[in-house]
Amino acid sequence: MKEKLSIVKIGGNVIENKTELAKFLTFFSQLKGAKILVHGGGKLATQLASKLGIESQMVNGRRVTDAKSLEIITMVYGGLTNKNIVASLQANGTNAIGLSGADGNVIQAHKRPVKEVDFGFVGDIDGINADFLNTLITSGVTPVFCALSHDGEGNILNTNADTIASEVAIGMSKLYNTTLYYSFEKKGVLMRIEDEDSVVKHIDSNKYKELLEQKIIADGMLPKLENCFHALQNNVGKVCLGNIEMIQPNASLFTTITL
Amino acid sequence: MKEKLSIVKIGGNVIENKTELAKFLTFFSQLKGAKILVHGGGKLATQLASKLGIESQMVNGRRVTDAKSLEIITMVYGGLTNKNIVASLQANGTNAIGLSGADGNVIQAHKRPVKEVDFGFVGDIDGINADFLNTLITSGVTPVFCALSHDGEGNILNTNADTIASEVAIGMSKLYNTTLYYSFEKKGVLMRIEDEDSVVKHIDSNKYKELLEQKIIADGMLPKLENCFHALQNNVGKVCLGNIEMIQPNASLFTTITL
Repeated sequence: MKEKLSIVKIGGNVIENKTELAKFLTFFSQLKGAKILVHGGGKLATQLASKLGIESQMVNGRRVTDAKSLEIITMVYGGLTNKNIVASLQANGTNAIGLSGADGNVIQAHKRPVKEVDFGFVGDIDGINADFLNTLITSGVTPVFCALSHDGEGNILNTNADTIASEVAIGMSKLYNTTLYYSFEKKGVLMRIEDEDSVVKHIDSNKYKELLEQKIIADGMLPKLENCFHALQNNVGKVCLGNIEMIQPNASLFTTITL
Repeated sequence: MKEKLSIVKIGGNVIENKTELAKFLTFFSQLKGAKILVHGGGKLATQLASKLGIESQMVNGRRVTDAKSLEIITMVYGGLTNKNIVASLQANGTNAIGLSGADGNVIQAHKRPVKEVDFGFVGDIDGINADFLNTLITSGVTPVFCALSHDGEGNILNTNADTIASEVAIGMSKLYNTTLYYSFEKKGVLMRIEDEDSVVKHIDSNKYKELLEQKIIADGMLPKLENCFHALQNNVGKVCLGNIEMIQPNASLFTTITL
């Protein structure tokens, strides 16, 4: 039987709030077994860019990563946020190691091809170096990913943290029994958006169809759930959606998704 | 017999010059055997700080690292410079991994105690995690250090890159036959400062005393050479001083230092 591996993704809402981040890092350190952390970027990069007078370019509501934005992102995601999370985890007794996709060639990607929009230095993932990640994990080290990959030609690429989390989980599923945790602002998928506690505790493929038909899963939740099912269809054992409390041993109010 | 390990340190003069850096990274990729790169910071951090209106505090000609400067340094050293060097090495066929001292707890340090001067978030090194570095190297991965350590209590610390290079070399000497390469602007220790090619090819303890008495080693070269002998007295096999050409197979014009 394969050993258990938890892949936990946190987003801007956790990273930007020092108290929440400290709370999360304590929970994460207490999480038993092999684990991987993936963190998004948050508003820090946008704030730094604005201080430096670098304007964020947007096309169809999506950010374009030009050369200057890439520098900012590399500094903030790969430097400030990643190293501080790693140092805090060390203080919590977790021997963490910060990784961009270039480090140890752990995430191979290519620059997104230009179709209607040139997204700039944005990476679409080709593969994960699961064997090296396994070497790190079996050495007792916990990988901490920032949202950067590379193209093998010398370029760092801005890469969606949700996608990194799912691709890492998929890649590691050949070696481990994986659980992918997506933390976000809500306690899970809600039956009634206005009721914070109306969490759908379990979603499988049938329930998913039902919730889609009832328009309970819609808007921003749609791509999130599509991403979850993509992971499950590629050998990830289980996906959990909820706030940072869900990784605690006694947590019960979050959404578990299986095929 | 122990395997050979090369520890190469490059400074700002290489990092700030794109052509020199590209040239060096090609040489470094061609360097045979196990290897480790240590890079300093360069002026990028000072430039970014000045763009953001953060003034560098200096006491007795030495930089003080306050909280804001530490953020800048963490971004530039750990993010921008380190990740771009790693991505470039990947493009050169070297499977590099970027490390601050917090990553994998590879450099344990403490904040320099306040005596006459409070240097702020500056780290003095306590130890190196040689076993984990060895795990990386035996997995075929080349560690690339930026000039950051950590205190194990959640703080990143600004740490002199020359010292990181020598402490890493010392720490690895229990496992490897180490050679420490310090690259700088000159071709080596010069007999006549005005003659770029008057390189002293070999310095041992006796020659060192002689050069000190003749005041040929003075000023900025003094701490550099003290650092070299400190490394040699702590089991580092050999120290080489010169420009980036010295790591090429046919290089001859550089200074080799032994006990």
